[in-house]
Amino acid sequence: MKFDTPIPVKEIAALTGATLKGNESLMATGINEIHKVTPGDISFVDFEKYYNACLNSAATIIIINKDVEVPPGKAILVTDDPFSAYVGLVKRFRPYESQNKAVSDSAVIGEGTVISHGAVVGHHVTIGRNCIIHPNVVIYDHTEIGDNVIIHSGSVIGADAFYFKKRANREVMWDKLESCGRVIIESDVEIGALCTIDKGVSGDTIIGRGTKFDNMIHIGHGTVIGRNCLFAAQVGVGGKAIIEDNVILWGQVGVNKDLTIGKGAVVFAGSGVKDSIEGGKNYFGSPVEEARTKMKELAWIKRIPEMWNKIKG
Amino acid sequence: MKFDTPIPVKEIAALTGATLKGNESLMATGINEIHKVTPGDISFVDFEKYYNACLNSAATIIIINKDVEVPPGKAILVTDDPFSAYVGLVKRFRPYESQNKAVSDSAVIGEGTVISHGAVVGHHVTIGRNCIIHPNVVIYDHTEIGDNVIIHSGSVIGADAFYFKKRANREVMWDKLESCGRVIIESDVEIGALCTIDKGVSGDTIIGRGTKFDNMIHIGHGTVIGRNCLFAAQVGVGGKAIIEDNVILWGQVGVNKDLTIGKGAVVFAGSGVKDSIEGGKNYFGSPVEEARTKMKELAWIKRIPEMWNKIKG
Amino acid sequence: MKFDTPIPVKEIAALTGATLKGNESLMATGINEIHKVTPGDISFVDFEKYYNACLNSAATIIIINKDVEVPPGKAILVTDDPFSAYVGLVKRFRPYESQNKAVSDSAVIGEGTVISHGAVVGHHVTIGRNCIIHPNVVIYDHTEIGDNVIIHSGSVIGADAFYFKKRANREVMWDKLESCGRVIIESDVEIGALCTIDKGVSGDTIIGRGTKFDNMIHIGHGTVIGRNCLFAAQVGVGGKAIIEDNVILWGQVGVNKDLTIGKGAVVFAGSGVKDSIEGGKNYFGSPVEEARTKMKELAWIKRIPEMWNKIKG
Repeated sequence: MKFDTPIPVKEIAALTGATLKGNESLMATGINEIHKVTPGDISFVDFEKYYNACLNSAATIIIINKDVEVPPGKAILVTDDPFSAYVGLVKRFRPYESQNKAVSDSAVIGEGTVISHGAVVGHHVTIGRNCIIHPNVVIYDHTEIGDNVIIHSGSVIGADAFYFKKRANREVMWDKLESCGRVIIESDVEIGALCTIDKGVSGDTIIGRGTKFDNMIHIGHGTVIGRNCLFAAQVGVGGKAIIEDNVILWGQVGVNKDLTIGKGAVVFAGSGVKDSIEGGKNYFGSPVEEARTKMKELAWIKRIPEMWNKIKG
Repeated sequence: MKFDTPIPVKEIAALTGATLKGNESLMATGINEIHKVTPGDISFVDFEKYYNACLNSAATIIIINKDVEVPPGKAILVTDDPFSAYVGLVKRFRPYESQNKAVSDSAVIGEGTVISHGAVVGHHVTIGRNCIIHPNVVIYDHTEIGDNVIIHSGSVIGADAFYFKKRANREVMWDKLESCGRVIIESDVEIGALCTIDKGVSGDTIIGRGTKFDNMIHIGHGTVIGRNCLFAAQVGVGGKAIIEDNVILWGQVGVNKDLTIGKGAVVFAGSGVKDSIEGGKNYFGSPVEEARTKMKELAWIKRIPEMWNKIKG
Repeated sequence: MKFDTPIPVKEIAALTGATLKGNESLMATGINEIHKVTPGDISFVDFEKYYNACLNSAATIIIINKDVEVPPGKAILVTDDPFSAYVGLVKRFRPYESQNKAVSDSAVIGEGTVISHGAVVGHHVTIGRNCIIHPNVVIYDHTEIGDNVIIHSGSVIGADAFYFKKRANREVMWDKLESCGRVIIESDVEIGALCTIDKGVSGDTIIGRGTKFDNMIHIGHGTVIGRNCLFAAQVGVGGKAIIEDNVILWGQVGVNKDLTIGKGAVVFAGSGVKDSIEGGKNYFGSPVEEARTKMKELAWIKRIPEMWNKIKG
């Protein structure tokens, strides 16, 4: 996320209680996870093996749990617990705002768009023209929706990323990474009933133009889905996946996080996509293989008794 | 769907901009997909290989993209784009009505039925006696519900069919077939929380008397489910399937569209039903096989290393 | 469930129309299924093979369909249909109360807790401090929620157990066991969007402290989940399962009813857990096996064509 106005790094140091080193006159323009940072951003790192990646990333201000050499032109904020410092900043600059009416006063709704009874539109939401938001849909804060979008009843757009840090020694072990990303639904998308599309941790979850979802589809945080995809009911996609244009996922397909499905790939019902797969092919199985490979394999399994007869004979 | 009153075919021709041939004095009594047509209906066909099926079906008025010989007593409406003409008629005769209150004035609710807080009942809905519609359920327009029906919180009854025509050359590739069918839930049915039952494209999705659903079950458009079935949580059934009486589907079973599951079949948890299966048997696997066949297969797979030892020895 | 005040067994006999035998001065303190009974409880049994288990259980008052010898100090209530007698008592002592406002007057909400717009809080619900109940969540009657709990939009807590008795000769074959248990969500739990957690049949469904759920997770009636578990999206768990502390279930995992998953077990995405599994290990497949065993099996399957070549040669 980007701040509304740049914040002096000294103020960030004061807010986090961290020790500031390096260029003390920098202005922070946003906060982001390491894979989403752009110049001006604050990021954080707490594992030694990722120190270099973070220090050498586009991030200008790095919250870190070791007093390292500061890269030229940057600043570091040294603290025992960078994760908590980062979460504190998210809470400070993207605070939780309670939702006590159906449509927030800060939401902007385009001409010709219908917000049906029981739908809830959060703060700072933008919805374009000629959309139908069916009854009891919930749209969390900061979501952006294009034109001609249909969202069927009960779907939930922009709930928190499912992202926790393990604190093995604490009684409450899973420490929540507060998320400050958004969901962006481009024009001409249709979302079925009872779908969930989570916001990104710091970047955006994107549903590309013209993509159509059936019911009960779950999309994890920060996943980017291309144009004109077609997902059947009960599909689930993990976080930070990339699904290129024209991909078809049939019913109940599961897709792992952090992978890419190439353009025009078709995955048959009930399959599980564990690793990245190339576009333009059909897939089946769990974990998936090319459909014709998998079909042959299923046929071979049926011949095991015949093989046994040959061997024992 | 049937029209409230018959419409002269000349009026249909004017509405669609199509060229009318054949019996110009016909009255259209409804619009339907080819597999649901009855005499008096308008249907459409745009693939040459289905021309004869449509022309020889019960449909009286056929929207078609070729100037063919008109079957005796019928009329054809010739247009470049029958799909769009059909969709235009659906929009004209079953227009979208926005939902801006909890219970539509046109809904008919039987004696002893409870509509809980937050539930939304659409236009032209009929609900029988002694039903409990729990909080935040959404019932779309034209749904019909019998007596003694329980629908748990958050379920969505009658959302649009998931049905699109591919327009390979358009920027927005998936062209929506507007659906005008209904959902019919017979008496003594119980629907769990957060289920979705989609309306038919032109006919009805039916849940037979005494059938019981657990939570998060998805039923596709036009599927017909018999009496006294029992579906466990997270089952998904595609469109236009036929599930006969007394069928049991255990948790997370997926069922393909356009198939039949015979009376009394039992499908074990996690299975995928790809093709029609006979009644009275137990099934397992993905794709399913008879359970005992599948169990043997799983046992044979475990013996592969033993076979390898025999061979290499 | 326990009664608010003890009820004389004679009154229970009158309510059920059953014949009372044994100690006629007993006071009933609650009603429970056989696996949940404690002294003072009424339970029921209608299959001869379970007679002894029920008569010798902690239950003090047994509804039974045979005139058997009464265990010392107990009472029996003889009736043709113990199931219906039990259901009648549940309806009498835990009657359905309609929900016609957003937050019931009998709900107790702790300081600092936010009930968002569209959320529905049922009768006799207790929610602790500093919780966020997001828009359109539904919490059924008698649910108990601790402190610092977050429940995302559209989730349904405490819907009825999915439990039916088969009545083969009736037109409506599945006879509902009315449930009177509760859901208990301990402190520091986070529940994602569009989850369902069903109440117990007579006991409690429990989500242990610090456990975190992603979206669209279903938990069946009476299941007990330990502390600090992590469940990814679209997981489904059947009724009366025991999931010990620190268990991780990845996306779309299905878990059978009536089993135990040991502490710290990790089940990979898409797997099906059919029987109890030990803690501290990784699992994969459907039905699951230890992950490394399953991986070897998948590798062996790929070698079948090679084996065939050796044999036929």
